[in-house]
Amino acid sequence: MPTIAVDAMGGDHAPEEVVKGAAAISLETQIEVVLVGDEKQIQSNLDRVQYRPERIEVYHAEQAIGMAEEPHDAVRNKPRASVITTVELVARGQADAAVTAGNTGAAVLACARHFRFLPGIRRAALASVYPRQTEYPGQDQLALLLDVGATIRCEATELVQFAIMGSAYARRISKVPSPRVGLLNMGSEDNKGGEILVEAYRRLSHVPGVNFVGNIEGHELIRGKADVIVTEGFTGNVVLKLLEGIADSLSELAGSAARESWRYRLGLRVLESGLDRLRSLTDYTAYGGAPILGFEHLLIKAHGRSEARAIGNAIKVAAKAVRDGVVPEIRQTLKGL
Amino acid sequence: MPTIAVDAMGGDHAPEEVVKGAAAISLETQIEVVLVGDEKQIQSNLDRVQYRPERIEVYHAEQAIGMAEEPHDAVRNKPRASVITTVELVARGQADAAVTAGNTGAAVLACARHFRFLPGIRRAALASVYPRQTEYPGQDQLALLLDVGATIRCEATELVQFAIMGSAYARRISKVPSPRVGLLNMGSEDNKGGEILVEAYRRLSHVPGVNFVGNIEGHELIRGKADVIVTEGFTGNVVLKLLEGIADSLSELAGSAARESWRYRLGLRVLESGLDRLRSLTDYTAYGGAPILGFEHLLIKAHGRSEARAIGNAIKVAAKAVRDGVVPEIRQTLKGL
Repeated sequence: MPTIAVDAMGGDHAPEEVVKGAAAISLETQIEVVLVGDEKQIQSNLDRVQYRPERIEVYHAEQAIGMAEEPHDAVRNKPRASVITTVELVARGQADAAVTAGNTGAAVLACARHFRFLPGIRRAALASVYPRQTEYPGQDQLALLLDVGATIRCEATELVQFAIMGSAYARRISKVPSPRVGLLNMGSEDNKGGEILVEAYRRLSHVPGVNFVGNIEGHELIRGKADVIVTEGFTGNVVLKLLEGIADSLSELAGSAARESWRYRLGLRVLESGLDRLRSLTDYTAYGGAPILGFEHLLIKAHGRSEARAIGNAIKVAAKAVRDGVVPEIRQTLKGL
Repeated sequence: MPTIAVDAMGGDHAPEEVVKGAAAISLETQIEVVLVGDEKQIQSNLDRVQYRPERIEVYHAEQAIGMAEEPHDAVRNKPRASVITTVELVARGQADAAVTAGNTGAAVLACARHFRFLPGIRRAALASVYPRQTEYPGQDQLALLLDVGATIRCEATELVQFAIMGSAYARRISKVPSPRVGLLNMGSEDNKGGEILVEAYRRLSHVPGVNFVGNIEGHELIRGKADVIVTEGFTGNVVLKLLEGIADSLSELAGSAARESWRYRLGLRVLESGLDRLRSLTDYTAYGGAPILGFEHLLIKAHGRSEARAIGNAIKVAAKAVRDGVVPEIRQTLKGL
C-alpha cells in the first residue's frame, strides 16, 4: 500500500479537518499516511478522533505557510514549512506522493524546488477536475482542465506536453482508455486563437497516444466533447474560478430558497433530481483535488476549503495515482514522441 | 430621432425576425430604420407585418455573408454584402449607427474597413453585457465585458483603452455616474498575471475618469464587484461563451424538468422566483447586443440567434447610444489622457 505524505497545516480548516480526513482513511483503507506539521497540534487533534495508529505517522515541521502569503517569499523564508517538508519526504522516497490543501503557489514552488521534471518536460501544470455533461456511455462525469494556474502564458510545446500529461492522468485515474483531448480556443477552426494555438493544434493532431478532438469553445467546456481540456494557466484559472463561483451561487440560491418558506422546501423536494444535478456541480470540490503534473513525483492539491471528506478523497486519489502508475504512464508517452 | 441602419440579412433568423423587429420598432418608437439587404425578401417580409412605412426605408444589397463563412474571405469576396453596406451607410452619414445579428468577424472587419478609429485608439473591442449579482443600490444588473473577440492578445495600452471605452459606454448607457472598472486576472494582487497585466494595473490606477477597482478573479465575474471588466479577446471570448453555455444548460434543465411530469411542473411553480433568476440569466441575450467600440461610429452586434424582440432591443440600444453621445463621451475621456 502506498504511503502518502499529507500537509496537516494547509487549508482553511487545518489542522482539524486534515487530521480528521487522514484518521478516517486509516479506518477505511490500508493507505499509510504521514501527517506533516506541528506535532502537538496534530497529536491533540488525533486524540479527539478514532484512527488506526499503525497507519498514521506524525512528522514534525515547525513552520506553516498561510493561505494568503505571497508564495515566493513564503517558500524562501520558511524552509521548514509543512508543505515543503511534505514534498521533501516524497522527494527522498519516504512517501510515494504528497497531498496539501494549502497555498497553491507555495505547493507548486515546493515541487519545483524538490522534485525533478520528467525528461523533456519544461513546465509543470496544475490540473483540476470539474463536472460536466457526458456525451457517450462510460464517459467520466468529470473533465480534467489544465493548466489552471501553475503557468500564466504558454508556448505550443508546453500545451502539447500538458495534453500528454492530462491524457495519461485521465487514462489511469478515470480508466477511459482513450480520453478525448481538446484545446481551449475562441473558435472551432484550426486557424483560430493566434500563432501559438495554431501551432499547438497542428502538433496535437499528430501526437501518438493523444486522442485530439480539436478546439473547444467556452460553451463546450460544460458539454462532453472533451475529457481533457488544455489551456494556458491564465485562462484555465479564470475558467475554473468562474465555474466554482457559479456553483457557489447556485448552492446559495438553493439554500436560501430552502430557508425562505415551506413552499420552497416543497418545491425543492419535488425538483430533487434536477437539483441533485445542480448540487453535484456545487459539490465537486469534494471529488479529489488537482494533481500537479510534470514532475517525477505527484502532489495532489486539495481545495483550500476542503473538509475531512475532501481531504480523504485527495489521499485516495494520490494513492490510486501511485498504484496505477500515473507518472510511469506519462514518462512512457513522452518517450514515444 | 436617430436613423439606424440594420443588416436585414444577418443572423440565424434573418431576414424574417430582423424585419419583424424593425417593424415593431416603427410602431413603438420614433426611430427611423434603414433595412439593408435583398429588397424583395425584405419587402415580402414587411408585407406580412404591421409597420409605419414612413419610418422604414429599404436599401438594397445584393450579397449576404453567412454565419459560418470565414470573415476575411467573405468581406474580401462580397463587397456588396448587406453588413458592409450597412456600415457604409453609417460611414457616409446616411445613418447614425449600425445593427447586425450576423457574422461577428465580418462585422468587425467591415467596421475596420469603413469607420475611422477614434484619435489614439489602436484596436477596436467587442463589448458584451451579461447579468450578474449586484452589490450596491442602483447598480446595473448587467456588467460589460470587453473585449470578447475582436482581438486575441492585447498590450497594456489596449487594455487601458478598453477600460476607457467601456467606462464611457456604461456611463452613458446604464447611467451609472462612475462605473467600477476591473481587470480580469488570475489573482487579486497587483503583481499577478504577467508583465502586461501588471503594467495595465499600474496605469489603470491613474487614468482620469476610470474608477478602477483592481483585479477581478473568475468567481468575481458573477458578483457585483465591477461594472466594466477588461480583458484580452481570447479570455473574454471563452468567458462569454462559457456563461452562455451555462445559461443554456440551466434553461434546458428547467425545460426538461417541466416536461417530465406534473411533479416537476408543480415544483417549478413553487420555486418560481428562484427560477426567474435563472431564467433572466438564460434570457440575457435579449437585453441589447454588444457594441463594437473604438471607432467614430457605433455598430451594435446582436446575438446570432436573436429573434424580433432582441433585434428591436439592439435597435433601441443603438439609438440610445447615439442620442446619449457615447462616442463623444469616449472621445472626451481620451482627450483627458
